[in-house]
Amino acid sequence: MMTQLESARRGIITDEMAAAARGEGCSPESIRDGVADGTIVVCHNRLHGSGRSLGVGKGLRTKVNANIGSSADDTDIAKELEKARVAVAHGADALMDLSTGGPVDEIRRAVIAETDACIGSVPLYQAALDTVRLKKKAIVDMTVDDIFAGIVKHGEDGVDFITVHCGVTRSTVERMKNEGRVMDVVSRGGAFTIEWMVRNGRENPLYEEFDRLLEIARHYDLVLSLGDGFRPGCLADATDRAQVHELIILGELTQRARAAGVQVMIEGPGHMPLNQIQANILLQKRLCHGAPFYVLGPLVTDIAPGYDHIACAIGGAVAAAAGADFLCYVTPSEHLRLPDVNDVREGVIASRIAAHAADIAKGVPGAVEKDNMMARCRKKLDWEGQFSLALDPEKARRLRVESGVADHGACTMCGEFCAYKVMDSAMGEEEKISS
Amino acid sequence: MMTQLESARRGIITDEMAAAARGEGCSPESIRDGVADGTIVVCHNRLHGSGRSLGVGKGLRTKVNANIGSSADDTDIAKELEKARVAVAHGADALMDLSTGGPVDEIRRAVIAETDACIGSVPLYQAALDTVRLKKKAIVDMTVDDIFAGIVKHGEDGVDFITVHCGVTRSTVERMKNEGRVMDVVSRGGAFTIEWMVRNGRENPLYEEFDRLLEIARHYDLVLSLGDGFRPGCLADATDRAQVHELIILGELTQRARAAGVQVMIEGPGHMPLNQIQANILLQKRLCHGAPFYVLGPLVTDIAPGYDHIACAIGGAVAAAAGADFLCYVTPSEHLRLPDVNDVREGVIASRIAAHAADIAKGVPGAVEKDNMMARCRKKLDWEGQFSLALDPEKARRLRVESGVADHGACTMCGEFCAYKVMDSAMGEEEKISS
Repeated sequence: MMTQLESARRGIITDEMAAAARGEGCSPESIRDGVADGTIVVCHNRLHGSGRSLGVGKGLRTKVNANIGSSADDTDIAKELEKARVAVAHGADALMDLSTGGPVDEIRRAVIAETDACIGSVPLYQAALDTVRLKKKAIVDMTVDDIFAGIVKHGEDGVDFITVHCGVTRSTVERMKNEGRVMDVVSRGGAFTIEWMVRNGRENPLYEEFDRLLEIARHYDLVLSLGDGFRPGCLADATDRAQVHELIILGELTQRARAAGVQVMIEGPGHMPLNQIQANILLQKRLCHGAPFYVLGPLVTDIAPGYDHIACAIGGAVAAAAGADFLCYVTPSEHLRLPDVNDVREGVIASRIAAHAADIAKGVPGAVEKDNMMARCRKKLDWEGQFSLALDPEKARRLRVESGVADHGACTMCGEFCAYKVMDSAMGEEEKISS
Repeated sequence: MMTQLESARRGIITDEMAAAARGEGCSPESIRDGVADGTIVVCHNRLHGSGRSLGVGKGLRTKVNANIGSSADDTDIAKELEKARVAVAHGADALMDLSTGGPVDEIRRAVIAETDACIGSVPLYQAALDTVRLKKKAIVDMTVDDIFAGIVKHGEDGVDFITVHCGVTRSTVERMKNEGRVMDVVSRGGAFTIEWMVRNGRENPLYEEFDRLLEIARHYDLVLSLGDGFRPGCLADATDRAQVHELIILGELTQRARAAGVQVMIEGPGHMPLNQIQANILLQKRLCHGAPFYVLGPLVTDIAPGYDHIACAIGGAVAAAAGADFLCYVTPSEHLRLPDVNDVREGVIASRIAAHAADIAKGVPGAVEKDNMMARCRKKLDWEGQFSLALDPEKARRLRVESGVADHGACTMCGEFCAYKVMDSAMGEEEKISS
């Protein structure tokens, strides 16, 4: 069985590439060629029967991921499934199940079954939890086999892409310590890995035994999402040696993965001043030879708890316009609590706005056309048309209806003084005068 | 009596400049020098006794304005005063009272008295309303004297800056018609002006009699905010001939105003694709000889009704990072209804995030320091410290408290698996090993 990457290199258009092309409205050939040169990945685990194939990368629509999943403090499976539905209904292309509490195997399988969205996960959490709960040991007692067993488990369940923190190495940890950081490591997977390395006095197994990881990935045709264990957790830590050194390592691993026929995308920061974003995208694209870039945020300020979805939308729009391909949402509850269903909706919409604004800037076909249709509906005061084109038709309608709709047809902002109406009158008058 | 501009040119630091400098944490000399060369304006009507002097322009913190005010469909004065308080409490530097319904004179005076914020208005609405309501005539029957009387009225009441659509001229209207636009004119003041010009077959009085406007502005030391009657109302209309031609005219008027000792800022779009924003800022700064730029949005997509504060925050952050000085907020209710108090809060916070992110990017002194303090509080899991630094402490606290705070000290996102805690443990262990 060939992987997507191997097929593409032989000029074959797989069913998954064709499906991804349909989802994009582009030619299957362009997907195939992008997969072949590594600038596009098609996410689809061979065992994820019901899953949509998702294309991510150069020239394609910017995709949005919603992180869901339980924590030890909140293990309600029904809530997670509702989050999955709400996220997909509001335009999330992918769901990462990051559950770390309660029946995580059951939650993951239920989340996969709940929608046809592309699914991602961080199998290291699984290995850690299984070690604690099944083996009654501490996280640092995970064996290397435990770590790989977690990956196989997720592959078997049909997860399409997995975050693996392969760039967290002794040399990178050393650089971080020497330079000093305000927030050290804020990636959970990165922190687990470092604690394991320190306590066991060993190198990161996902780096040391990268070939073993590639074999598993080949088997399921998993996309490796090379995680950024050193993503900055605050503006002050952005673009430092640890982050950039990890990126160099991820670029090296990208080449090895491609040579083995395994698709790769790269994860990125994090927290970052607005003026550093473009440089970071350029750096990632160059160091990782054009691999698709999957960014969490970046959040452009640290002082907006409660509104981090907005800080994320600003950074995400700028990142995607500069070439990032895949945006991981952030919710209003980031840094404060596990998000609830409302947070998920707010987060998805904010990232969708960012992705769409970037697609317009990048000239992705079909993007600005929606805006142009909206503009024509606005001009005509065609409210139903406006609602149907809105990213969240329900909220748009609710806000208008709540205000009490007067019979002037405009909205309560301007009423009869509506500029559209005044201009129609003025231009009509001018027509009369000039004819 | 000299204006701020005249004083600055003579090397005088006025009380208003000193107050603006205190508000910035910069030297009074730098404010004076910026006012003298027109790159900074100090907004403060001579008659606005209780008003804070607000510096806007190059090198200063990016300011945020909240539009409030009644419409014919909603004339409740108490509601507008609550909006004023909420806006200022959440960080708005200025309030524009755009009332067009109910007792507008009473509302404006009450809004001015309610807080010490800088106040802006669009006196043309006043003239239009007074014509309709006091003279029982149609808007197009306004006389030139009516138009100037509206301006004097606002000057007398202590308004600090006024939007005047002086660049809406016959030549610009002609250009708009010849090129064609999806949404024509969406500025209310612009639309009123054009209707008046068409029906009366005359040039715009605020252009034709600009010297008369300057005399009034000198008298009160009003800052003229030269309005963008042709601001694009949708992405498709952005950066077209009408918009750019109007900007050229505004640049010419800027020179005339400065020559008369009158301070000027320039208003800008509107709706604009993300990739056009930087060019627009550059164009404005060059064509208007460095005058402070006051932008409404720009909204980077048209399809986000219900979430336009987010589309605005994205555009505003990019605009301010590129040099825009003053952001006019947009609320979630934009394009749908008159905003309510919640909308005002959401809108102000979104624009504050944008302004702050831009200030960090621009290197405004004191900006990133807050983020660095937040990062240190996060690392220590110092929640009270985090709340105190948050743009909206109340919401941040509420989200955390609602989730039920467990005794692990972290948040319910990761619980015991909190990366900060794991890293502290790992680094502590490493210390032990290396010592």
